[in-house]
Amino acid sequence: MNDQHIVKSYDRDLEAIQATILKMGGLVEDAILLGSEALTARDIEAAERVRKGDKAIDALEEQINEEVARTIALRAPVSRDLRILLSVLRLAASLERIGDYAKNMAKRVTVLADTRGIEGADASLRRMAREVQGMLRDTLDAFVRRDAELAREVLARDESVDQMYNALFREILTFMLEDPRTITPAMHLHFIAKNLERMGDLVTNMAEQVIYFVTGEKPQEDRPKGDRTAYMGAP
Amino acid sequence: MNDQHIVKSYDRDLEAIQATILKMGGLVEDAILLGSEALTARDIEAAERVRKGDKAIDALEEQINEEVARTIALRAPVSRDLRILLSVLRLAASLERIGDYAKNMAKRVTVLADTRGIEGADASLRRMAREVQGMLRDTLDAFVRRDAELAREVLARDESVDQMYNALFREILTFMLEDPRTITPAMHLHFIAKNLERMGDLVTNMAEQVIYFVTGEKPQEDRPKGDRTAYMGAP
Repeated sequence: MNDQHIVKSYDRDLEAIQATILKMGGLVEDAILLGSEALTARDIEAAERVRKGDKAIDALEEQINEEVARTIALRAPVSRDLRILLSVLRLAASLERIGDYAKNMAKRVTVLADTRGIEGADASLRRMAREVQGMLRDTLDAFVRRDAELAREVLARDESVDQMYNALFREILTFMLEDPRTITPAMHLHFIAKNLERMGDLVTNMAEQVIYFVTGEKPQEDRPKGDRTAYMGAP
Repeated sequence: MNDQHIVKSYDRDLEAIQATILKMGGLVEDAILLGSEALTARDIEAAERVRKGDKAIDALEEQINEEVARTIALRAPVSRDLRILLSVLRLAASLERIGDYAKNMAKRVTVLADTRGIEGADASLRRMAREVQGMLRDTLDAFVRRDAELAREVLARDESVDQMYNALFREILTFMLEDPRTITPAMHLHFIAKNLERMGDLVTNMAEQVIYFVTGEKPQEDRPKGDRTAYMGAP
């Protein structure tokens, strides 16, 4: 077996791993959209599908971990190839967490089905979910095409998710203050909003990973966090 | 250089990486305790120290990632050794996230300093923080001593953190319903409680990683999640 063969086998391994990441990413995108639709429609059955679907996402992460470990053990890659494989582990871990947040969103549909809605909140959450799903789709595209520019655009878009979250936080607080009967649904809607904001952060981390392994450029550690609500008092 | 030499160099690398993990773990333990003390005392300066200290934690994660990548590239480890190194990456990633949650807890001290307290909530949060810190300390011990039994004990303890969280969630909802002036601080305290609950989950994941690399036994995917509040309606 000559070097050319080794390189080709490695490339095949990497392609297989990439295909698994894309499959996992597609399931996570679906979970975000289906979860947010289930929420808007208070559709308990759709929510149940999202919850059950999370097992397949977890299984794919496990598969990626095993494929990466096997490839490292077999091919003993160095420098750039190793960097890509280790980045892939992080991408898979982020996807798994985003899937968990989508599952958590779906779980809350059951209790929200029995409570009164909060005007405007559903529409805001749906917009946030669509934005996060779009960012994830572009990050996965950037990964496959090794397109650092597209990944950089994703970083910029996280700000709009953060702005939507901050606006919604104030809106929800106002509702709670004005009508205590909204407190219970408001707490759940707020959690969902916060989870979507965290999903946006995770997608942003993934985009940084893509930039890192395409260009070798480290993520900026001081990227400002968009959640300003930790400092917010009463509206 | 004979095999014996290679083995010894690898062991030295692994020991160095372990020392870095322990250093990082120590800083995270401090952040949890100091963050919770800052919260109880509404001590803005202590909170500021926790926030600034998070940079050192992030830098150590970066260092661990580099040390692991270098060790894999140099030593081309297989099977058990590779499993340990990949587990270490996950431990470091979990520690980084726990540190982030501690930083977030500290951030909220600023706004809480200007609001009225909620009876009992501070004490509950302090108990949760101590429990999480104790679980983390034992997980790191279990890691160093390759003690799967100790790691299993940590798994069992996560339930008590979850119970504390569930009780506090209901308590906070009750306060908000009874006195709308508590809504703003209640939202922040609730976030802190939820973050502590997530920190407990992350420590539990770490303990599962330790069990995995000591025994080769996979974490149970169906471990029940202790946060039942996703299903909770009005108290």
